[in-house]
Amino acid sequence: MANKSQPKLWVLTEEDIDALEIGSAILGTGGGGNPYIGKLRAKQAMREGLKLQIMDVDDVDDDALVVSVGGIGAPVVGYERLKEGREGLRCLRTLEDRLNFNAVAVVCEEIGGQNSMEPLITAALAGLPVLDCDGMGRAFPEMQMVTFSIYGHRTTPSALCDLHGNTVIIDHAVSELWHERMARAATVSQGGASVLASAPMKGSFVKQYAIKHTYTQAIALGRAVLKARAEFRDPVAAVAEQEKGKVVFTGKIQDLKRHLSKGFVFGEAHLNGIDAYEGDEGSIVIQNENLIFRRNGKVEVVVPDLIIVLDVETGEAITTEMLQYGQRVAILALPAPELLKTPEALEVVGPRAFGFDDVEYIPMSVER
Amino acid sequence: MANKSQPKLWVLTEEDIDALEIGSAILGTGGGGNPYIGKLRAKQAMREGLKLQIMDVDDVDDDALVVSVGGIGAPVVGYERLKEGREGLRCLRTLEDRLNFNAVAVVCEEIGGQNSMEPLITAALAGLPVLDCDGMGRAFPEMQMVTFSIYGHRTTPSALCDLHGNTVIIDHAVSELWHERMARAATVSQGGASVLASAPMKGSFVKQYAIKHTYTQAIALGRAVLKARAEFRDPVAAVAEQEKGKVVFTGKIQDLKRHLSKGFVFGEAHLNGIDAYEGDEGSIVIQNENLIFRRNGKVEVVVPDLIIVLDVETGEAITTEMLQYGQRVAILALPAPELLKTPEALEVVGPRAFGFDDVEYIPMSVER
Repeated sequence: MANKSQPKLWVLTEEDIDALEIGSAILGTGGGGNPYIGKLRAKQAMREGLKLQIMDVDDVDDDALVVSVGGIGAPVVGYERLKEGREGLRCLRTLEDRLNFNAVAVVCEEIGGQNSMEPLITAALAGLPVLDCDGMGRAFPEMQMVTFSIYGHRTTPSALCDLHGNTVIIDHAVSELWHERMARAATVSQGGASVLASAPMKGSFVKQYAIKHTYTQAIALGRAVLKARAEFRDPVAAVAEQEKGKVVFTGKIQDLKRHLSKGFVFGEAHLNGIDAYEGDEGSIVIQNENLIFRRNGKVEVVVPDLIIVLDVETGEAITTEMLQYGQRVAILALPAPELLKTPEALEVVGPRAFGFDDVEYIPMSVER
Repeated sequence: MANKSQPKLWVLTEEDIDALEIGSAILGTGGGGNPYIGKLRAKQAMREGLKLQIMDVDDVDDDALVVSVGGIGAPVVGYERLKEGREGLRCLRTLEDRLNFNAVAVVCEEIGGQNSMEPLITAALAGLPVLDCDGMGRAFPEMQMVTFSIYGHRTTPSALCDLHGNTVIIDHAVSELWHERMARAATVSQGGASVLASAPMKGSFVKQYAIKHTYTQAIALGRAVLKARAEFRDPVAAVAEQEKGKVVFTGKIQDLKRHLSKGFVFGEAHLNGIDAYEGDEGSIVIQNENLIFRRNGKVEVVVPDLIIVLDVETGEAITTEMLQYGQRVAILALPAPELLKTPEALEVVGPRAFGFDDVEYIPMSVER
């Protein structure tokens, strides 16, 4: 009998989860929801003896099947209403039963925010590892904005479970947009925050189209913040250094327009520069996430590049709904992963996809 | 090899379908939607060579599995927007695939209105008969108001298909009410009028809890109207005689209050008596269907007994959304089938279920 060498698994510690909370919030670029409740659930699972394990995406067999799992719904409901706890597992089991297969690993749809935690809990309950990757490398508001969908994976059949015990299968959708529409409606009917597992993907597909090593990245980011704080160093500088990112602005929030519509946060924040940016003005356009940064009225960083708002004192990410008048913040920009910058990806996650017809995406590394 | 004698099948003619259109509209008691489009589709199917067949419910094997099929959504959307045509068949096939069984017959949920036609078309496409029965014996606005649910059948898993080609499976609902809520939301996301097939039922269950011979009843009703018209006799009297029902009022619509809320029609119609009822006043309370008839302010007929508004000239049913000032109508009352009058049924389809806490159900045959 052929005996393939076992892939190495990274078993997470509670300290890793603390770091992941901070790091995934940073990669949330203002959205993705608060991972705090997920952190508590992950730690609880560990204390009950479950193993939360990460496996390198390149260690999965090409023909093996993996399933992505994530929360769907209004982040605020996901944050304020506790989960039953096994929604993700029920989703996975429903899919396996519907299609008669066994998943060998769980995949994260969205490393930014809340959705970094759910795959770990689902996988631990199923006795499976989570692959070290995700489908966004950040947070985005809609499901079709995931690299798997962008590069041809069809989400259906997908399974949707709520905390009451209800299960819906979106068995077939004529397009990814129809899937989003039906799953969103079912989620609202289930109370506004459910868990969704998508049709299985082959190992070979995920190796090609996932954003790789984003659990490693998020946890390292969180560790850098915690270490800087412990050593009384500047945590914002530590984040920038860790990510080879660029602090493009520091300022005080002067004006803030924000409104909620169709479950999304829309708005704009205006900042007066401080420290090195004294005399400059900055602004951020918001649609759940931070989408466009302008300096003195001129566009400088554009989605899908990451625009991250950090508290200057603690280095922690501030989500768009937590922005407040008078806050002193640093704006950190990170280049988007290459898979988000292709023409087919920009159609789905570039500025036009968010309705900004007059803004062109120019990668932040390129001089405008 | 044991050779069981084949049950006799009644192959419908176009004339039967014409009669069914009239009869099912009468049994719709003001609701259930207009069966006109369904009639055209049924005739088209026949002209394409399909057989629309009815089988006596007592001829189905006790252990055989049958599936109920019906439209779900706003009747007006179902009437104004054409169907793709094979929604019901796709629902049936999805269920069979999900649960790995073969249905031997199709069952009607609701004989009143539009939903009398869909099972015939679905069954014809699948090469199956429709059982001569339904789950309401009339029309009701919500899915849990069907005898199958009242007497313990769980609707899930159910399959929901739209004209675009989308399929949703409500795989598990913690209650029939949750099923209704999720299926309704999915229907709205699909555009407002879909077809739903419910989890299979055993032949033995349907024999016990279906309202029997309602296709025979509806077609005979329609024939009575057509015959009376051809012979220049009073069609209202013909309907009353055919059903051994009671014409409780004839009048002219004087006042009409009606409003649409959450997809339902609410309202009240006031009538001034004519002919034998000159000097009397009548009123009908409406919630999609006609629910309560009062004579001179006194309650006389109450849901689930059937309150049917007929055009005095043609004997055709007038749906609640088609009521108009000045119309001359007859009000016909029919006693509800026994299965709708048990304590467990009245909890779901009695006056209290519609919010009338001050109205008691007294069967129309009993003196008040």
